[in-house]
Amino acid sequence: MHSFRSHTCADLRKTQVGDIVRLSGWVHRVRDHGGVLFIDLRDHYGVTQVLADPDSPVFNEVEKVRSEWVIRIDGKVLARDESLVNDKLPTGEIEVFIQDMEVLGAADELPLMVFGDQEYPEETRLKYRYLDLRREKMQENMKLRSDVVASMRKRMWARDFREYQTPIITASSPEGARDFLVPSRLHPGKFYALPQAPQQFKQLLMVSGFDKYFQIAPCFRDEDPRSDRSPTDFYQLDMEMSFVEQQDVFDTVGPVLQGVFEEFAGARKVDAYADWPLISYRDSALWYGTDKPDLRNPIKMQDVSEHFRGSGFAIFAKLLETEGNEVRAIPAPKGGSRKFCDRMNSFAQKEGLPGMGYIFWRDGDDGMEAAGPLAKNIGPERTEAIRQQLGLGVGDAAFFLGGKPKSFQRVAGLARDVIWAETPKDPEDETWRARFAFAWIVDFPIFEQDEESGEIDFEHNPFSMPQGGMEALEGDPLAVLGYQYDLACNGAEILSGAIRNHKLEIMFKAFEIAGYGEDEVRRRFGGMVNAFHFGAPPHGGCAAGIDRIVMLLAEEENIREVMLFPMTQRAEDLMMGAPSVPDNAQLRDLHLRVIEPEA
Amino acid sequence: MHSFRSHTCADLRKTQVGDIVRLSGWVHRVRDHGGVLFIDLRDHYGVTQVLADPDSPVFNEVEKVRSEWVIRIDGKVLARDESLVNDKLPTGEIEVFIQDMEVLGAADELPLMVFGDQEYPEETRLKYRYLDLRREKMQENMKLRSDVVASMRKRMWARDFREYQTPIITASSPEGARDFLVPSRLHPGKFYALPQAPQQFKQLLMVSGFDKYFQIAPCFRDEDPRSDRSPTDFYQLDMEMSFVEQQDVFDTVGPVLQGVFEEFAGARKVDAYADWPLISYRDSALWYGTDKPDLRNPIKMQDVSEHFRGSGFAIFAKLLETEGNEVRAIPAPKGGSRKFCDRMNSFAQKEGLPGMGYIFWRDGDDGMEAAGPLAKNIGPERTEAIRQQLGLGVGDAAFFLGGKPKSFQRVAGLARDVIWAETPKDPEDETWRARFAFAWIVDFPIFEQDEESGEIDFEHNPFSMPQGGMEALEGDPLAVLGYQYDLACNGAEILSGAIRNHKLEIMFKAFEIAGYGEDEVRRRFGGMVNAFHFGAPPHGGCAAGIDRIVMLLAEEENIREVMLFPMTQRAEDLMMGAPSVPDNAQLRDLHLRVIEPEA
Repeated sequence: MHSFRSHTCADLRKTQVGDIVRLSGWVHRVRDHGGVLFIDLRDHYGVTQVLADPDSPVFNEVEKVRSEWVIRIDGKVLARDESLVNDKLPTGEIEVFIQDMEVLGAADELPLMVFGDQEYPEETRLKYRYLDLRREKMQENMKLRSDVVASMRKRMWARDFREYQTPIITASSPEGARDFLVPSRLHPGKFYALPQAPQQFKQLLMVSGFDKYFQIAPCFRDEDPRSDRSPTDFYQLDMEMSFVEQQDVFDTVGPVLQGVFEEFAGARKVDAYADWPLISYRDSALWYGTDKPDLRNPIKMQDVSEHFRGSGFAIFAKLLETEGNEVRAIPAPKGGSRKFCDRMNSFAQKEGLPGMGYIFWRDGDDGMEAAGPLAKNIGPERTEAIRQQLGLGVGDAAFFLGGKPKSFQRVAGLARDVIWAETPKDPEDETWRARFAFAWIVDFPIFEQDEESGEIDFEHNPFSMPQGGMEALEGDPLAVLGYQYDLACNGAEILSGAIRNHKLEIMFKAFEIAGYGEDEVRRRFGGMVNAFHFGAPPHGGCAAGIDRIVMLLAEEENIREVMLFPMTQRAEDLMMGAPSVPDNAQLRDLHLRVIEPEA
Repeated sequence: MHSFRSHTCADLRKTQVGDIVRLSGWVHRVRDHGGVLFIDLRDHYGVTQVLADPDSPVFNEVEKVRSEWVIRIDGKVLARDESLVNDKLPTGEIEVFIQDMEVLGAADELPLMVFGDQEYPEETRLKYRYLDLRREKMQENMKLRSDVVASMRKRMWARDFREYQTPIITASSPEGARDFLVPSRLHPGKFYALPQAPQQFKQLLMVSGFDKYFQIAPCFRDEDPRSDRSPTDFYQLDMEMSFVEQQDVFDTVGPVLQGVFEEFAGARKVDAYADWPLISYRDSALWYGTDKPDLRNPIKMQDVSEHFRGSGFAIFAKLLETEGNEVRAIPAPKGGSRKFCDRMNSFAQKEGLPGMGYIFWRDGDDGMEAAGPLAKNIGPERTEAIRQQLGLGVGDAAFFLGGKPKSFQRVAGLARDVIWAETPKDPEDETWRARFAFAWIVDFPIFEQDEESGEIDFEHNPFSMPQGGMEALEGDPLAVLGYQYDLACNGAEILSGAIRNHKLEIMFKAFEIAGYGEDEVRRRFGGMVNAFHFGAPPHGGCAAGIDRIVMLLAEEENIREVMLFPMTQRAEDLMMGAPSVPDNAQLRDLHLRVIEPEA
């Protein structure tokens, strides 16, 4: 017999009754039922009930074991009494009578219980992560993450992509965030950087003729603390293709992601890739107040400026005299009560806006009646025109926000979520949460203008190809859209990508508009810019956020629930004790001295 | 039609003759045959011949293209004349007459030609790696590497292993080499380290109950320059299992590696896993002079001390009076000529030994005759006993080395290789090189003694379980063997592993013998040591060197031939310009000052 196990703790069934078996695992729980000791023995695969009574030759030793000890037992498989069968456990029909036992690894008193649902402070969980990870939910989350990554790989291979590993110790690839630097021992005063993303390398792979690339890529950014991201690194499904246009990228990665979500969604619905809408950045902002809309929520905001222009509602009428101002409506089906409308108005005020005007429609003495001060101010004709535009009726409401869209857009987006969450749903809609709803967001502007300084800079990624090429760059820069796209799922951005600008003259022109001279571009992106001198193919791709996708599938809000050994928000590894003070000799080797911060 | 291609450059066959097609790719080569321009158009998948003559509407533009320009052409598929069919090319039956062309990416004058076999200095190749990588051999090597890694993953999954990613920014895991450090911005004066291997993390995963782990793991070591390794990082197929013994690890990873080698060996023979011998570290040293023997070479050295003890060959007889000295023989089948024996003697002298005694056997007047001064000195009986022990006959030779085995073992191993390489083989043996021959090397000693200081330290890895456990550690430390193993293939170490020491009291005892107190062990390996207090299962595993395996399969001697974007031996990335001098602001953020090295 094998030294440690003839079966795992998930294997035994009624058919094995009478067999002598060997099991190893952790003592999940010990119960003493009138002198009979029951142990739930747990391994990675499951739990088996094992027991000893004073007839067992090792009863005295069994009496000593405590939670989380690792033991090996030999014993005989017994059928449980019908009344004691545990349907929830695959091994619930049997138990094993212990005839021999060996302690493989004892445990001290535990700072964190594996059995049960007790909550512990994050610090305890991270310091004793090896205990925390033994808990069922964490085991499931880590297996899910591993399986999601494996599924991505298999699906990319099936589409004739090869995985290529790009360097981790390299030069900085400026992506806008802060680099982690790595001092060089051989080259005093010089530093490597950990890549913020394999952006330049994947483009270099295209220039090298590899045609199709993907990588489960670690990305390193020295980020300031935020609860929903790791302060040090994250993982992407990174991909790039040559000789493609935007739609080719969608047709490649769309089915891959649909497949991954379907594989792990369980009973949840996954929208079919063919139905994912393409929404322009501009429309997304208008309709949803965000570029990562949650399409499980069907509410679409609308521009209703024309109904307020020159109307009796002086605040909006006046606002609309200034160019760039708009009035937008958030329809609220089934939100048609004064109480609800007032609550939403307060919500907007709490979020820093002066409030939201509203109209709601109710049954009046003469049929449908529009209520609320705003309806009175603009009169019945305009009110009715608004109702028709928004497709609302009795029992519904609409909320209105005016001004520069940028000033209220974010709150409008939040209000849209709250309205949807707090208004009644059709019974058949009650499952709306259990759905993964996707949208491509396209046509991002290449440039944006700083409101205060008036300076123009890149809105997103400086490597994207402008729609219309060189000609477009010669017109109004703020009107230039890029072949640049995101994929949103349930309100989260899970992918971002672009068709790249592989033409040096267009790239230099774009950088010039953003205020960067050719010298600086060559200095910052030398590897890639040099390569573009020697035959660069058109190419494009994207990167999907693995942590975020696993969070969606696991329904976790905190990234640390889907990572094995995360840092704290302060970027400390409490288990391994990192970061730590190096030896003087190490610093000397690296030609470095630490400057004590001023007190 | 797609904007860039209707087919790849490997797709077109005779069945497409007459079709209008669109191809994109690099201009591999242009030939002008009496006013007709032939272009070998190349993409990742293959080459297609395209052509234009003055009848082509874009002849003038085609005339301008040069090597490595990226172009898109539209054209008509034509059958080649029977006499012009190129059998070596899958597309060799057709060519495409260019009707339209677009330059997608022009190229400057090339520092390195993609077409042809010209050799370039490594510096040129690394600086223009994107050109170097376009060359056929490099494309094949990189595809091979990617496919080997994919094959490893599939085979590990098939054995119910999951891949888990362990942290890259973490604390040092002291493995004996130098760490790369990463300064912390949030914690002045403190540093993270890049892992030399995921050793502690994989053991922590076992303590966390994950049972089976693998990872294609990047490992980071700040190494001094050496041509056959990367100065910064390398990749391992890293794996670990719980509740296993040594043989379980062999039975898991053996078939995986056999499968990987078979998948990519082509016509080369791969020894079946079931036939891989288990050779003790001690036997390997005796038989092969190394712990990474090349078993394609059948020569086995032997201890022949007894034949020389008290013999007439005074040098050896005297040597053998000292304990620890031995005389070993290297049999040399078909090496039986004075010329060959003298050459081998010189070889040993060149390698720093006084020389090698020898005997060779030839046909004499009275049948077989042993020649050489050594045979005369020890007389016919001893000579014959040696011949019989070594199983040699007419036409064969044997070489002899005496002293402390450590003093000559390395040269003996080299001599064994040279003898095998330079002696005639049977005709059916001529394919001996085209074989992958494996051997498990087991029973490594846990400790070694420094010859000069007499101090005892770990021979290999301090985390291995000593055979015999605590009891063994209480005896002679130098006699303690570990559950520790390597896998050798064709003279290279391709895997190393161990059953781990998961019992703290045994671990502390082992460290004590090596001169490390419990405090120091807790300080250096705190993460793991703490975890062992809370129920650690028996576990073990190994790590296989991916770079080395790909080098064997690709028959490359230089690791840079199997890496995408390698550093120079001086750890510089010439393409990306790393390492480089950071901004002052970056150093300030990291609380660091560079100390100029003294002139």
